[in-house]
Amino acid sequence: MTGVSESDGSVTLDLLKKKMADFAKERDWDRFHSPRNLFLAMVGEVGEVSEVFQWKGEVPKGLPDWKEEEKVHLGEELSDVLLYLVRLSDICGIDLGQAALRKIELNAIKYPAPVKGSESV
Amino acid sequence: MTGVSESDGSVTLDLLKKKMADFAKERDWDRFHSPRNLFLAMVGEVGEVSEVFQWKGEVPKGLPDWKEEEKVHLGEELSDVLLYLVRLSDICGIDLGQAALRKIELNAIKYPAPVKGSESV
Amino acid sequence: MTGVSESDGSVTLDLLKKKMADFAKERDWDRFHSPRNLFLAMVGEVGEVSEVFQWKGEVPKGLPDWKEEEKVHLGEELSDVLLYLVRLSDICGIDLGQAALRKIELNAIKYPAPVKGSESV
Amino acid sequence: MTGVSESDGSVTLDLLKKKMADFAKERDWDRFHSPRNLFLAMVGEVGEVSEVFQWKGEVPKGLPDWKEEEKVHLGEELSDVLLYLVRLSDICGIDLGQAALRKIELNAIKYPAPVKGSESV
Repeated sequence: MTGVSESDGSVTLDLLKKKMADFAKERDWDRFHSPRNLFLAMVGEVGEVSEVFQWKGEVPKGLPDWKEEEKVHLGEELSDVLLYLVRLSDICGIDLGQAALRKIELNAIKYPAPVKGSESV
Repeated sequence: MTGVSESDGSVTLDLLKKKMADFAKERDWDRFHSPRNLFLAMVGEVGEVSEVFQWKGEVPKGLPDWKEEEKVHLGEELSDVLLYLVRLSDICGIDLGQAALRKIELNAIKYPAPVKGSESV
Repeated sequence: MTGVSESDGSVTLDLLKKKMADFAKERDWDRFHSPRNLFLAMVGEVGEVSEVFQWKGEVPKGLPDWKEEEKVHLGEELSDVLLYLVRLSDICGIDLGQAALRKIELNAIKYPAPVKGSESV
Repeated sequence: MTGVSESDGSVTLDLLKKKMADFAKERDWDRFHSPRNLFLAMVGEVGEVSEVFQWKGEVPKGLPDWKEEEKVHLGEELSDVLLYLVRLSDICGIDLGQAALRKIELNAIKYPAPVKGSESV
């Protein structure tokens, strides 16, 4: 689809951060990108994801009955959430990738995995 | 903080996807991870980010007046949004990294950057 | 529960608006109640409603299998959304009740009801 | 605008509830109005409110610099949130008006008003 070297599936949060920063700079949009503006923009995109799911009732994993165009549309809306999230984090001076790794570690402490073989249920 | 090799700043979405999948599997949480359940969980986390910003009025870039613990807390809430977003995408069969790269390209077509040197303003 | 005369079920939006205004005034909270602060507070409460629904899968009308305390909790979170919505509208100078009546009329034009007796399905 | 007797400003939540129930019934939409569908629809409308506020920076009370059409638009989006909130509550079997009055009482206990005259600042 793109021919970019990122196409091997290893898209990094830093790459997206840089692309968003360049995108804003080229359009002189930095002046709009305050933390609360960006957060509200993200909430708007969350709303658009919600609209995709809203009248569907329960949806199975993998979206087996969805048309290809619906899946593409959902991917675009999820991407919009991600891109504003990445940009918001950058503008707040937060390293989102490191914060996420750390949060997974905290979650592992909060919700310890059961020891294998010890379950009897 | 972690000593993991991901600490060079190049955290990939695929790494987070794998960690979230392993996390759910180890705890037998896959049965809870339907698309709409995960989306609602993400909305809950968006609400927590909102609570961080809600009474602050306009907030400058870089959060200069925030205490370190507030910034850490914000980073945790932003991470929660990211982790559910990554997991939701995975469960929906969407390659979030590729979708995000493609969305940036679409945005560049929708909002072309002004040609350098042609601005007179 | 309360003995207030509003208990006949006819709670008006104006009553809630007045109660919220008095509540803020008595606590000197008007200075915090800017439009965007209130909207973010509302988003936080929407997140709390989401947390109530998030791991439940599809939920039948009337919440037949919910414990009474869960229903009370949901009612409180829905109320929080309503109260911030009422307050936000007031602070923005919008008559929410009249706006809502008008929106229903607009919706009726946008989505006309099928004429009775003309359906053959 | 309408000539309805509700135009005296005393719009009740019960009136809106009844109008929403009639609206859904006339269009055979009850089958779509499950609790989680309605909640997701509400989140979509919250997103639309967010889009109204997103690039504005801090907004003063009363929206003094907004065009009339922007205020009307905001009123419509706030109404959409309200109408889905009312409908969601109804479908869940929750008396939203009574729940809101009760929540205000709980809030008054949680955040007691300072006694007048006792403040020294």
